[in-house]
Amino acid sequence: MKRDLFVRWFDDLAAIGRLPEGAGWRRFAWTPEDRKARLWFRRVADLLELEVDCDANGNLWAWWGRACPEDTATAGAVVTGSHLDTVAGGGAYDGALGLVSGFAAVDELRRRHGSSAPPHPVAVVAFADEEGGRFNLPCFGSRLMTGALDPVGALDRKDADGVTLREALERSREVDPTRLGPERDRLTGIDAFVELHVEQGRGLVDLNRPLAVGTVMWPHARWRLTLTGEANHAGTTRLRDRSDPVVVAAYATLAARTRAEREGVIATIGQLTVEPNSANSVAARVTTVLDARAPGGEAIERFVDGWASFVRDRAADHGVDVELACDARTAGVEFSGKLHDRIVSLLQGTGSGASSLATAAGHDAGVLAHHVPSAMLFVRNPTGASHTPSETASEEDCLVGADALTDIIEDLAFS
Amino acid sequence: MKRDLFVRWFDDLAAIGRLPEGAGWRRFAWTPEDRKARLWFRRVADLLELEVDCDANGNLWAWWGRACPEDTATAGAVVTGSHLDTVAGGGAYDGALGLVSGFAAVDELRRRHGSSAPPHPVAVVAFADEEGGRFNLPCFGSRLMTGALDPVGALDRKDADGVTLREALERSREVDPTRLGPERDRLTGIDAFVELHVEQGRGLVDLNRPLAVGTVMWPHARWRLTLTGEANHAGTTRLRDRSDPVVVAAYATLAARTRAEREGVIATIGQLTVEPNSANSVAARVTTVLDARAPGGEAIERFVDGWASFVRDRAADHGVDVELACDARTAGVEFSGKLHDRIVSLLQGTGSGASSLATAAGHDAGVLAHHVPSAMLFVRNPTGASHTPSETASEEDCLVGADALTDIIEDLAFS
Repeated sequence: MKRDLFVRWFDDLAAIGRLPEGAGWRRFAWTPEDRKARLWFRRVADLLELEVDCDANGNLWAWWGRACPEDTATAGAVVTGSHLDTVAGGGAYDGALGLVSGFAAVDELRRRHGSSAPPHPVAVVAFADEEGGRFNLPCFGSRLMTGALDPVGALDRKDADGVTLREALERSREVDPTRLGPERDRLTGIDAFVELHVEQGRGLVDLNRPLAVGTVMWPHARWRLTLTGEANHAGTTRLRDRSDPVVVAAYATLAARTRAEREGVIATIGQLTVEPNSANSVAARVTTVLDARAPGGEAIERFVDGWASFVRDRAADHGVDVELACDARTAGVEFSGKLHDRIVSLLQGTGSGASSLATAAGHDAGVLAHHVPSAMLFVRNPTGASHTPSETASEEDCLVGADALTDIIEDLAFS
Repeated sequence: MKRDLFVRWFDDLAAIGRLPEGAGWRRFAWTPEDRKARLWFRRVADLLELEVDCDANGNLWAWWGRACPEDTATAGAVVTGSHLDTVAGGGAYDGALGLVSGFAAVDELRRRHGSSAPPHPVAVVAFADEEGGRFNLPCFGSRLMTGALDPVGALDRKDADGVTLREALERSREVDPTRLGPERDRLTGIDAFVELHVEQGRGLVDLNRPLAVGTVMWPHARWRLTLTGEANHAGTTRLRDRSDPVVVAAYATLAARTRAEREGVIATIGQLTVEPNSANSVAARVTTVLDARAPGGEAIERFVDGWASFVRDRAADHGVDVELACDARTAGVEFSGKLHDRIVSLLQGTGSGASSLATAAGHDAGVLAHHVPSAMLFVRNPTGASHTPSETASEEDCLVGADALTDIIEDLAFS
């Protein structure tokens, strides 16, 4: 593993979409920052003489040893990767670490085995818009590819500036919005998908280990709540005459928190937009998103049902209209079976060792796991923080992760 | 009163800053929309052969019969006017009606008395940034003029895009930010200020009258609350490990509402901004503004003290930092004395008649009232709504208001 190459690639990507004054990173899908990040992907792939193609859903693939360049139905492929996009104000490692490690693994394997094609084609993939930060459609590229996301409803989704996904894709000039959808051939051509990711909690800190293999991914859902009241003057409108959606949103926020605590659910309201957002006006509308996760899907449904019923009651008290729509729903995943066992025993054999870890975060690997053998590796994060500039990982631990990924790909692609 | 002229001027101004799809108007100070509105003011003034000057604080004055064009210390002036700016998503009448009525009154008086200078100079004034929609500094122009607002602290205030007031003024090319401040000569040259305004409640609907004379204006204050927590991943961060400012903001919102109900205060949270505002992240920061009004200043102080103490307790529970700053504080005003009595008896005499009305809204007339004789007229608003596109007034009532304003100015300026 060439440490200097690893660090340079990582730093080059981290220079893209960096916000001023320690505010973190922002690489939203189909923005100029995303375009630069995709260019970074192509440049590194070129350097490694990998052949890049962009699939119909905007996912970027860098191939080593694909039999025929025009053939999307590559059989028996061993794929690793993650994503280029970040949340708003996110950290440098989420997504990026998996891509840099994938490229570094290919580089190392070419040193070990020469540059001729491996027995199994190897690819590094950057899935499009994993975070869903712009259109609130997380795992956009992987869900489209597997058929889990219907492009029809998605295309009219608007970002915060009112730009539709359709327009954003048209402007990208890389993706044709009319061609979005499942890519079964490409999917069935994958023998194994392994995603390396920085850990998003302090599990490995507590275990005092640098690396873990993923065991389960919690089910996850997002609901968009739109509360429509009536704008009015903040001074002259009597309290009892108001239809104030900000008050109802406050009830919704507190109910989400207290009910989540009671029911053992992880619930978050981190996005909330007030219109017209004027200090001198009772607001007309609040749009907010409830993010909910739990060890089981039924617990989420039960939690959201109870919460929604409470919110509707408070909204009725205040003369506020409620619209509630499920934006995304991901089933839980158990990373198990042959691939998982093979990775665990390989890492025990090479001495890298690896613990086991569950995650409540969503990942493209969780989407793919329903269709192809998939696995995840997590690298220790000393702060345990995630989706913030303070997420981190030591260079040492990153290299332990990349080394393990190299061994895994070697084991899968050269056997 | 020329009805067609009145309507044309009103419609011309209403064409500026109109948002699509019934979303109302947005003319924030020192924006391209504001520039257009100020141009409208200058065009109408030109048409009426009024001489326009912009004072050091950005207030626009259109003079009829000022003794010496260079003389800002015009003595004995009779002034009417209002403001060009709107809140975000505001209505067509707030501010605009007072300016159109002022110009229409001058037009009518020139018809009655010829175009030579009246015994008292007459001015129509558009006070700068009355709503404070952009920098949360309501009654900006009038408060600077009277010395009630210190320009030093104000200039570093930022709008939602991070543009400082200083930069906005520099870009306007109309106001020199280093010259902001009190204009005592201009102020002492005013004999009377009369502001006509659309009513912001249903008081006149209940009274079944088209017009009222203002009696009192409630004291008013705005506090900016900044809650700083810690951004983190919405899935992987345990509830008990969070410092979530959105939760604390929800407590603050509900406490403002329930305490206001209990204490007879009007309190509103209509502006609330979440950072980074990502569905997939616990938020890092919430910035919000509490607007509070009451019949007496002590009631406001007591209310805010209790509310702030509750918010600090909840913030401490959640590991969130609190910053609370008073953005604006306006003392109550009693519109009384000779000017008020003279207007009431005049309107009774002319048969226009007029009821009396208190207001909880802030106005430039309330700022000026502490320094020069000031009065307000309110025109009936059938919806009672304000700061929303549904605020309205019938053409008939508007003309009753403008006629009354004409008679008042005639009485004051030609005697």
